[in-house]
Amino acid sequence: MSAPIAVSPLAPVSFPDLPEVAGVEFATVAAGVKYQDRDDVMLAKLAPGTAIAGVFTKSATRSAPVLDCQAKLGGTTDAGAAILVNSGNSNAFTGRNGLAAVEAITRATALACDLPESRVFSSSTGVIGEPLPFERITAHLERLAASLERNAIESAARAIMTTDTFPKGASATADINGNNVTIAGIAKGSGMIAPDMATMLVYIFTDAKISQADLQTLVSEHNDTTFNCITVDSDTSTSDSLLVAATGKSGIDVSGERAFSDSLHQVMLDLAHQVVRDGEGATKFVEIEVTGAASDADAKTHGLSIANSPLVKTAIAGEDPNWGRVVMAVGKSGAAADRDLLSIRFGDVVVAEMGWVSPTYDEAKAAHHMKGDTLFIGVDIGLGTGQATVWTCDLTNGYIDINADYRS
Amino acid sequence: MSAPIAVSPLAPVSFPDLPEVAGVEFATVAAGVKYQDRDDVMLAKLAPGTAIAGVFTKSATRSAPVLDCQAKLGGTTDAGAAILVNSGNSNAFTGRNGLAAVEAITRATALACDLPESRVFSSSTGVIGEPLPFERITAHLERLAASLERNAIESAARAIMTTDTFPKGASATADINGNNVTIAGIAKGSGMIAPDMATMLVYIFTDAKISQADLQTLVSEHNDTTFNCITVDSDTSTSDSLLVAATGKSGIDVSGERAFSDSLHQVMLDLAHQVVRDGEGATKFVEIEVTGAASDADAKTHGLSIANSPLVKTAIAGEDPNWGRVVMAVGKSGAAADRDLLSIRFGDVVVAEMGWVSPTYDEAKAAHHMKGDTLFIGVDIGLGTGQATVWTCDLTNGYIDINADYRS
Repeated sequence: MSAPIAVSPLAPVSFPDLPEVAGVEFATVAAGVKYQDRDDVMLAKLAPGTAIAGVFTKSATRSAPVLDCQAKLGGTTDAGAAILVNSGNSNAFTGRNGLAAVEAITRATALACDLPESRVFSSSTGVIGEPLPFERITAHLERLAASLERNAIESAARAIMTTDTFPKGASATADINGNNVTIAGIAKGSGMIAPDMATMLVYIFTDAKISQADLQTLVSEHNDTTFNCITVDSDTSTSDSLLVAATGKSGIDVSGERAFSDSLHQVMLDLAHQVVRDGEGATKFVEIEVTGAASDADAKTHGLSIANSPLVKTAIAGEDPNWGRVVMAVGKSGAAADRDLLSIRFGDVVVAEMGWVSPTYDEAKAAHHMKGDTLFIGVDIGLGTGQATVWTCDLTNGYIDINADYRS
Repeated sequence: MSAPIAVSPLAPVSFPDLPEVAGVEFATVAAGVKYQDRDDVMLAKLAPGTAIAGVFTKSATRSAPVLDCQAKLGGTTDAGAAILVNSGNSNAFTGRNGLAAVEAITRATALACDLPESRVFSSSTGVIGEPLPFERITAHLERLAASLERNAIESAARAIMTTDTFPKGASATADINGNNVTIAGIAKGSGMIAPDMATMLVYIFTDAKISQADLQTLVSEHNDTTFNCITVDSDTSTSDSLLVAATGKSGIDVSGERAFSDSLHQVMLDLAHQVVRDGEGATKFVEIEVTGAASDADAKTHGLSIANSPLVKTAIAGEDPNWGRVVMAVGKSGAAADRDLLSIRFGDVVVAEMGWVSPTYDEAKAAHHMKGDTLFIGVDIGLGTGQATVWTCDLTNGYIDINADYRS
């Protein structure tokens, strides 16, 4: 865990200048859960009346904090709320001790912030199967609660990193009938070093006024086209969590407002792309657009089959416009396809049409496209109007080196 | 394609001494389809009365020869039969030209062997999307038919190799009421170099007497627990084909005979294991046994989820008994599981029980097991009686290097 990690070549130039969100304050601390000499716990305090929506991993072996968050979501109270996150230990597969640790942390947070326990949401990310030394966290809660600030979101983004190579943030402003609503979010993932899991954590904050039910509907819908459309290595975490908190402090009701929905989608997609750009060993960011499928669901199945194929991902690493492997991945996906109706583009280059190489195919042009660090693969199935876009990265020796390291 | 390939460290010491099978003759030739200076076409001629059963890739983009074989299977005639296989070009994703090539090859084979075209089965394996120069094959058919021999099965196993690092063969003898029936088979796969697909071809021959329908039932049933239980990289070929030919020349009726079924299963499993042992970049052969699942199907789903997980496979490459990743793979598989009922073994070492590290767990012992080249991972789901065993290999830099090479 101690080797210095270079920043991903696909990282943004710098952390974005995120706006403050009324009703949201942050504090971070170096609690020494696992990492030394860096902040590893973050607290976000949310004003009374905040609506909180979330989506979580569907893993059958999900962690204790995930189960606790799921149980608390949707509760109706005007009390404030808090989100408490630690890095370095995921408190996953820790048996009954896992739940006890979550209870200790949420109780201490509730006490320090003067909130009901039912309004404290916690996440943990890092090593799996080791007991979470929760007392290192609870010991700092009074101090955390006393040091909350509105402009500390970048520190929060850094405190939740595990083996990420850069902190991830995004924001947007929605114009609602001439009034501005602000959205700002942070994410971690998915740089990993053995034995960390591919955990992804996302926290998004807005001053918009919206009911919990309406917010949950929006979040679930947008999740399907953002975080559920990215993949680094097809391995699903036991801890994936996305929480969206709407404080209502702008006083602007955004229910049914398209501008808010679009802005929220934009922030979610931006953070999702940043997670792919920090994919382990990644050197290429790849957008895969599938059109002409029998349904949108079929299009997504084809897209993820291509995005998860080790043979497609290694070809991309080798800058090889290997469309034969794309054909293979479509064929194995299980969704409807007809070999002789397929067409495939790499960038603007039409590679294959009607089940065979296009007569206009220019391998040199396709190869030139593959040399970039942002690639596009378009696949038309030729059967219907279903479509989906997914994002992934290449599979390199860097991925193997990171994940074949013995835990130490 | 020209770089010398080291033999897999998991290869058998030598090609086995396979028995002749009455009613089966082989011939091979260097036709120069793609490779130079090596045999790349093999012909197997089968005596009149031979029953032929088969299973094929379910890919929606399967190749022309696969479609042709599927159409011909199950035909009832007492005529002899032939199997014609070329390596170097898979004749996959070649549009209408692909079918024309298959027709030319099967017609020429039928003529040379004095057989109806409906009894000629062909396979092609190698590069995808390039027209098959079938005339290089048809030009040699008279010569092939004139040079058939009963004891040439090893040459046949070598002629169908693409980037395999060793030829694969296996045999068994079944005692049917005091009389011996012989089974011998060959396979290719799944060493690959870009741009070859993960093609697997298997041909098994027996002198047993059995109806086509009974043989097909056995082959389909055994396929589920042998070839359909192996994975190198989760990528499914457009050409996978398994053909089993029963010549009946022993005069021994094996319908309903358990000894024959068991022997056939043994040969299929042996060949399936050899394919894994030649997995690209493989340094470890891994058996994964899942027990206690809600159903056999659920057990297989869990097993393949573990076997296909890049994080599990890289941990194995790193000789890391990383049971957290096994928990993750069970959790994401979609089959039923309860985190707190799981138990996991690496070799004889109980790693986790009841959702957490076993109190008796000895990491040094587990790490010692991981250093071997033949590994065992046992997972008990704790829910029911469903079970399955699957086999895979590790994921190494060797896999990346082989598949990220630009085609040349």
